[in-house]
Amino acid sequence: MKDLWVEEKVGDFLRNSYKIQKKLFSEQSTFQKVEVFDSPYFGKMLFNDDLAMVSDKDEFVYHEMISHVPLYTHPNPTKVLIIGGGDGGTAREVLRHKSVELCVMVEIDEAVVRACLEHIPSCSKDLNHPKLKLIIDDGIKYVKETKEKFDVILVDSTDPIGPAQPLFGVEFYQDIFKCLNDDGIVVSQCENPWHEITMQKKLLSILSEVYPIVNIYNYHNLTYPSGTWSFSFASKKYCPLTSFSEVNFSKNNLDYRYYNQELHRAAFALPEFMKKELKQYLKNR
Amino acid sequence: MKDLWVEEKVGDFLRNSYKIQKKLFSEQSTFQKVEVFDSPYFGKMLFNDDLAMVSDKDEFVYHEMISHVPLYTHPNPTKVLIIGGGDGGTAREVLRHKSVELCVMVEIDEAVVRACLEHIPSCSKDLNHPKLKLIIDDGIKYVKETKEKFDVILVDSTDPIGPAQPLFGVEFYQDIFKCLNDDGIVVSQCENPWHEITMQKKLLSILSEVYPIVNIYNYHNLTYPSGTWSFSFASKKYCPLTSFSEVNFSKNNLDYRYYNQELHRAAFALPEFMKKELKQYLKNR
Repeated sequence: MKDLWVEEKVGDFLRNSYKIQKKLFSEQSTFQKVEVFDSPYFGKMLFNDDLAMVSDKDEFVYHEMISHVPLYTHPNPTKVLIIGGGDGGTAREVLRHKSVELCVMVEIDEAVVRACLEHIPSCSKDLNHPKLKLIIDDGIKYVKETKEKFDVILVDSTDPIGPAQPLFGVEFYQDIFKCLNDDGIVVSQCENPWHEITMQKKLLSILSEVYPIVNIYNYHNLTYPSGTWSFSFASKKYCPLTSFSEVNFSKNNLDYRYYNQELHRAAFALPEFMKKELKQYLKNR
Repeated sequence: MKDLWVEEKVGDFLRNSYKIQKKLFSEQSTFQKVEVFDSPYFGKMLFNDDLAMVSDKDEFVYHEMISHVPLYTHPNPTKVLIIGGGDGGTAREVLRHKSVELCVMVEIDEAVVRACLEHIPSCSKDLNHPKLKLIIDDGIKYVKETKEKFDVILVDSTDPIGPAQPLFGVEFYQDIFKCLNDDGIVVSQCENPWHEITMQKKLLSILSEVYPIVNIYNYHNLTYPSGTWSFSFASKKYCPLTSFSEVNFSKNNLDYRYYNQELHRAAFALPEFMKKELKQYLKNR
């Protein structure tokens, strides 16, 4: 039998092809093409518009790093908002924190949620958790209209093309500011420094207009092209390095696969080429 | 005109294709197929046996991290040996250290050196440096026979297939031990934790039999598949964290592109899945 391969295009200069066994799900939703494949090496893989979003083999890197870094910086995160995150992996990690009483997740595309509930249980297994309130709606509209306030907001978005584009804009971050408590933290998917440093500058510049503490930290997974990917970190009060809560870390006593205490700090040590490009936007680091 | 692409196979589960403009060099040497391509995005690229070894765009990550970490751990590195490193990038970084009086480089494949001298000057520009002694010979034979002693040895090898295979063996590291001064350090290309954790275990296990200090540190570049790659660090006396020399770092005052003081320490913060797999081999960390 001929091998099946799924190809992902990175700009016009690189193509990654993943060997797969089977296509499990394929649907053109209102927002994007949603596909799930089964790969002998990577396990279940979610692709949106032909870009790899999630694989069983390494999803824990992204999901642990987007959630534990802010949740161990805030001393008592009880209410958390996730914008996007339809696969469920970020919610799964947030809900492991004993202090969290409510996690609201606003995902625009129900097809992503449905595909992952059906085919990627490793990520979606907690999407029916009693502390999770899952809303299928536009996250941009939600943060504009809601009266709720959160301790931590996680912007778990796709790339700044298609439906996620406004998630990289000024207005959205003004609304996020309003939805955060006075000691709140927002962490956002912030692309990568090799191919997208201009986008990183843009987002950090928006954040540095509004928040007293702005930083960026890196993680390294298997299926995102370029090796190094980043999350932006903006905070009204707590610094991710000096406010790390050893107490909460010990109290939760979780079994991590990527995150740990040393890596929390190390993730903020930027390669020199990133530091040079981005340092003008970093505050209180 | 039809685009040209060079394809690299990673195991049987992943393929990376790089867009290129032109093939600049191609030769089947005694040891391997050596090719240089010009890519509009990555610049000049060296491939050995169809695997990307070097690209102009990100070569500094590998070359800065293999050299500066041990050279700023040793308080006075004057004699350095490089095994492999035919492209010249590692020698270039070593020779920037003011303390270094002699750098011996033993590369088995003169075709690699010739290809890079002709086509990749960014890496090879110091291969005629007066402090560099370039020997075209088998590094395994060299460390067995030489009476020279070194402060730092860098094993800048290709993957453990083909000519580099014995560079991942016990006998080679016994000879390396003999070639190191009593406070010497050896750093080696150590593959990656996602696809090659078994190889990492094997190399660290060999090192932990012989050296009092054994560790592993990570770097993240663009063109090596999997995001995270590692160097093993074995030392007779100095610990890479507690012996970091701020004095030498300040004295050299180099303009780095990836390496810096925070990243030196951060590189040893291992993801939890690596720590769990490798901690039994790590000593004095």
